Amino acid sequence: MASGPLMIIGGAEDKLRRRTILKEFVAAAGGAEARIAVVPTASSLGPEVVEVYDALFRREGAADVVAVRPENRDDAHDPAFVARVAGATGIFMTGGNQLKLSAIICGTPLGEAIVAARERGAVVAGTSAGASIQSSHMVAFGGPGSTPKQRMTQVAAGLGLVESSVIDQHFDQRNRYGRLLMIVAQSPQLLGIGVDEDTCAVVERVGVPGGGPDGGPGEQHEVLRVVGRGAVTIMDPSRITTNAFEARRSAPILASGVVLHVLPEGSAFNLTTRSLLPHVAEVDPGEAAEMAEAGQDLRELARDIAAADTSPGTLKRRLARSRGATPRRAAAAAPAAPQDTYPDTHPDPTDGATP
Amino acid sequence: MASGPLMIIGGAEDKLRRRTILKEFVAAAGGAEARIAVVPTASSLGPEVVEVYDALFRREGAADVVAVRPENRDDAHDPAFVARVAGATGIFMTGGNQLKLSAIICGTPLGEAIVAARERGAVVAGTSAGASIQSSHMVAFGGPGSTPKQRMTQVAAGLGLVESSVIDQHFDQRNRYGRLLMIVAQSPQLLGIGVDEDTCAVVERVGVPGGGPDGGPGEQHEVLRVVGRGAVTIMDPSRITTNAFEARRSAPILASGVVLHVLPEGSAFNLTTRSLLPHVAEVDPGEAAEMAEAGQDLRELARDIAAADTSPGTLKRRLARSRGATPRRAAAAAPAAPQDTYPDTHPDPTDGATP
Repeated sequence: MASGPLMIIGGAEDKLRRRTILKEFVAAAGGAEARIAVVPTASSLGPEVVEVYDALFRREGAADVVAVRPENRDDAHDPAFVARVAGATGIFMTGGNQLKLSAIICGTPLGEAIVAARERGAVVAGTSAGASIQSSHMVAFGGPGSTPKQRMTQVAAGLGLVESSVIDQHFDQRNRYGRLLMIVAQSPQLLGIGVDEDTCAVVERVGVPGGGPDGGPGEQHEVLRVVGRGAVTIMDPSRITTNAFEARRSAPILASGVVLHVLPEGSAFNLTTRSLLPHVAEVDPGEAAEMAEAGQDLRELARDIAAADTSPGTLKRRLARSRGATPRRAAAAAPAAPQDTYPDTHPDPTDGATP
Repeated sequence: MASGPLMIIGGAEDKLRRRTILKEFVAAAGGAEARIAVVPTASSLGPEVVEVYDALFRREGAADVVAVRPENRDDAHDPAFVARVAGATGIFMTGGNQLKLSAIICGTPLGEAIVAARERGAVVAGTSAGASIQSSHMVAFGGPGSTPKQRMTQVAAGLGLVESSVIDQHFDQRNRYGRLLMIVAQSPQLLGIGVDEDTCAVVERVGVPGGGPDGGPGEQHEVLRVVGRGAVTIMDPSRITTNAFEARRSAPILASGVVLHVLPEGSAFNLTTRSLLPHVAEVDPGEAAEMAEAGQDLRELARDIAAADTSPGTLKRRLARSRGATPRRAAAAAPAAPQDTYPDTHPDPTDGATP
């Protein structure tokens, strides 16, 4: 069975207006068929955090929403909790303290049920703390600042839904370049992924065609695409030069040669090959109209030259007709004519009024 | 004559304790021979800003400190001001509003005198606003944030002491990744240079040996080295993929493939070739001692093998002697012996006590 998508949300996802990310989550979980398990363990709030998400997901049409709230590792072995995750088409891990969340669920039957849910096709989503825990190496906590400094952050083990990575959230709003750079400088096999607020990195496995050695299915790549208001920042330290192994106390760390990818909504990045998927420039409608007009002018010019080749009289008649009509717009509305069937007047007078 | 260094200070340089950067500035300006012109035009403060720097530079031993404070472009044509700059061995531009500073001095005789001062060997320094103005393209003003967004900052023309560059300051402390990324995404021929507080990028022209076509002097490269408490962040967008030409309103900007170099004190970067100068790892004294010991052990082992080749009796005598002494430390103190002159006991009993 095909694996489900991961939704890595940088915190503070819009809950009141466009709700782009929450809508996408419910749709990915099956829309009217969606059975959603909310894991609020990271949160310091009481039942209200589940109530809020319950209302939000039901408003988007989800069939069922249940809470899965282990408060210690014994709870995370409770078969009732595991069964709720096993029956869900979508898992949603809330914000809060990711170290509490990971310390309670990682390496337990509940944590394994979340990993298994993704493998059987459920969508696994998390916001803020629930985003952090999805990487193999997790930012436990740490301070803000643009410049990487020794000891400015702590790393713990995450669920590992995204391998060889470290995910950070509230990235733009809380100035977290420094701590993510510190981690990738110390562990250059990891890819750093910083997700802004109200922004989601959707990670899906995509088959690469024709890759199998015996003509079977090709290899799977993980592709990240961006949804939401901010950006996802990728730090690739593959070729880093660093002094992270010897920088003292809280000194700034040398991190030279890190390749940066800032990805706004609509961008897609291949995590397996660590490369941007081709960026397609937007087509400007004004420029497209102008080029269509210019193309029409060229066709007219070609016809004029052809007419002049035939006889000076034919050209004279063509030009007289052109002056009578508003040739550009009239011609644009007419199908391209292989011979001189150019109409003298246009059926719609309003359309010829624009210069 | 050799050109002088530039000192690009990210603001808030230490004035009370170690004063590393201010000391380096006065030394570069000639120490006891230093004649310093302070340009406080960017500042909104009154005469006190000059008084502070006057006291600081004289404390470091400068011979003379004069103020050059044009308040409009007419002032910046005043021959008296120009003469003060022309007679200085060091120019120091204070913090404040860089757009006021650039609007008053760029393209005037005073601005030209500052550029000329550097060419004749004077040191040109500036902090905060006085750092920004040194690049060819200047951050005029703009908001904070890690993610580059369309229209988040404005660019004006600087003095151009550092060509093809844009310099930003208070880089770590004011979260300015986003605005510097926005500028280099829109102008990928520029190198982005972000300087932290109490940190200085010293830029010097360095001759590349043997480069001249007729055996004359080689070409000059510009080398940046870092002094101070924070880091200098370089953004090289040479291979960027971006949508900066079409991102709408205040949308996040695609900036994929930007190469990042975070440089702490002691690092050096060639601005001409856009590459880190070789990073030399520090030698750990403990590890060096351990390796010396291991080398000694290997020599002992080689001698044991040689003794066994000679006769079993010789080896037996060697090993008996070794057990009597503390062989490693004793051997480390003795010079390497080509034949079996290994001492039975060590002259210094305290030295053999460590295991």
